[in-house]
Amino acid sequence: MRCVVTGCAGFIGSTLTDRLLEQGHDVIGYDNFSTGFPEFLKTAQESPQFTLIKADLLDKETLTKSMQKCDIVFHIAANADIRFGTEHPYKDLEQNTLATFNVLESMRENNIKRIIFSSTSAIYGEASVFPTPEDVAIPSQTSLYGASKLAAEGLIQAYCEGFGFQTLIFRFASILGERYTHGHVFDFCKQLVNNPEKLHILGNGKQRKSYLHVQDCVDAILLATKKMNNKMSIFNLGSDTYFEVNNSVNWICERLNIQPNLSYSGGERGWVGDNPFIFLDCSRMRALGWQPKYSIQESIIKTVDFLQENKWLLTRR
Amino acid sequence: MRCVVTGCAGFIGSTLTDRLLEQGHDVIGYDNFSTGFPEFLKTAQESPQFTLIKADLLDKETLTKSMQKCDIVFHIAANADIRFGTEHPYKDLEQNTLATFNVLESMRENNIKRIIFSSTSAIYGEASVFPTPEDVAIPSQTSLYGASKLAAEGLIQAYCEGFGFQTLIFRFASILGERYTHGHVFDFCKQLVNNPEKLHILGNGKQRKSYLHVQDCVDAILLATKKMNNKMSIFNLGSDTYFEVNNSVNWICERLNIQPNLSYSGGERGWVGDNPFIFLDCSRMRALGWQPKYSIQESIIKTVDFLQENKWLLTRR
Repeated sequence: MRCVVTGCAGFIGSTLTDRLLEQGHDVIGYDNFSTGFPEFLKTAQESPQFTLIKADLLDKETLTKSMQKCDIVFHIAANADIRFGTEHPYKDLEQNTLATFNVLESMRENNIKRIIFSSTSAIYGEASVFPTPEDVAIPSQTSLYGASKLAAEGLIQAYCEGFGFQTLIFRFASILGERYTHGHVFDFCKQLVNNPEKLHILGNGKQRKSYLHVQDCVDAILLATKKMNNKMSIFNLGSDTYFEVNNSVNWICERLNIQPNLSYSGGERGWVGDNPFIFLDCSRMRALGWQPKYSIQESIIKTVDFLQENKWLLTRR
Repeated sequence: MRCVVTGCAGFIGSTLTDRLLEQGHDVIGYDNFSTGFPEFLKTAQESPQFTLIKADLLDKETLTKSMQKCDIVFHIAANADIRFGTEHPYKDLEQNTLATFNVLESMRENNIKRIIFSSTSAIYGEASVFPTPEDVAIPSQTSLYGASKLAAEGLIQAYCEGFGFQTLIFRFASILGERYTHGHVFDFCKQLVNNPEKLHILGNGKQRKSYLHVQDCVDAILLATKKMNNKMSIFNLGSDTYFEVNNSVNWICERLNIQPNLSYSGGERGWVGDNPFIFLDCSRMRALGWQPKYSIQESIIKTVDFLQENKWLLTRR
């Protein structure tokens, strides 16, 4: 296949890019490097089958040109910063909804019909059913990030109906592992590299989360892309267990062999729109023969090890 | 109350404007007259409590200024043309999603917290539960219009969560009555005014639809606005019966006392994204004490009478 990967220099996008190249596919990687890193493309850049386009998804002309003769688009690029949405409300709309519209229009101009989309469990808002299945009752949006991704899902579906597109939509739980660059494990490691004696935790530490290792996530994407050919499929991607933020504090501190003083901002939520409990029903994806290789604890430890080996990620401004 | 009504010159917006003025409220009407008509504001213009702002919702500066000292926004403006979505995919996104974002941001700048929003049953795509309740399983979007409105709902909800907004979201079935200017009854009347001997029907005529009279729609909006004070409420607004497009053909022809030759384009759907069956569960709205005054047949006859008395609407280019 000749694939486009948007967000190819990001955490999940670069991991997917490496795996697609390993499988022998051609990859046109597209990234504006707003949150991606050239370092994550080191392996990809060694492959003659990889082409890097350094541009923004809002630059529709470049986007359309870059997709020439491609078969499939993995649209992974996003503003994934759920926490600071209310500080810049337009950013999610622009980077997630409008950028997805540009991707769809560029595909249409190039007669590409297949789009694989990284959505998010954030679209479930504060779910009341656990584990949460894909076909839960229409949820209320609790974050601008979730709202922007649900909007993108809707656009993609309308293109499937109106223009004969075909899609796989993956609603990710939080993803962890090598090249992880934001989220609570990152924040904790960053705090601890600056001062190993103190750790401040947003909320009461009892928020329950379900994390998945990035390689397990990419395994699922590649498997479903191979197996599914119907108009539209939606898959939750997460673990079949969950943990408390406090568990991760213990695992991280054990791994780093430190005992910081803990302080808490308090409350059920780490911030406005933080979800005190995320736990996805992934049986639909499992029915395709997929199962995660790494436990949440293993994923967190691998992430901590990666960040220790790549302290430049923690110390950059 | 000092109210903003976006889309004040449109079918539903102008009817709501008249009713708000009747109740003694001040109304700042906002319209770009892209699909609205100055004629619909004749009554409103006679009121000293009405102010008209002729501007586009994409002009955020004017929008923000026009909302000064207002208490509540009735955001009714929309590109409501579901049928031609695929001919100009950006239009729904711009007029419905981005315009709603501008409304929300302008409200935030003016510290207005309350927004009443006209959404649509189109967000249910092709429902599989009838009558369809508000909390049905997350639907797949089948039109750019539905997708753009669902996106707007999500944005509003995120503002409720992130910025302390309060909202009522109404998901309309098709609305009929005086000042109705688009939809199948309009199309039929338009064909018949040009040639009363022929009528072409999109689809097989067996599409089942649920229509509501515009005064019943506005009754519901005003009642719920008065009664509901919680963060977020969503109400379906439709009839508790439905009809076939063929029924409406009979009612219209009887009323006009004509017997045209009928032809059909065929198929279950009138166009891509047309929904062969719309029937909403409106028990949530009824529980507030609301019930429609007009049957679907009465609504269609009133609409036909209105269009006969206002043939300029049918004959303009």
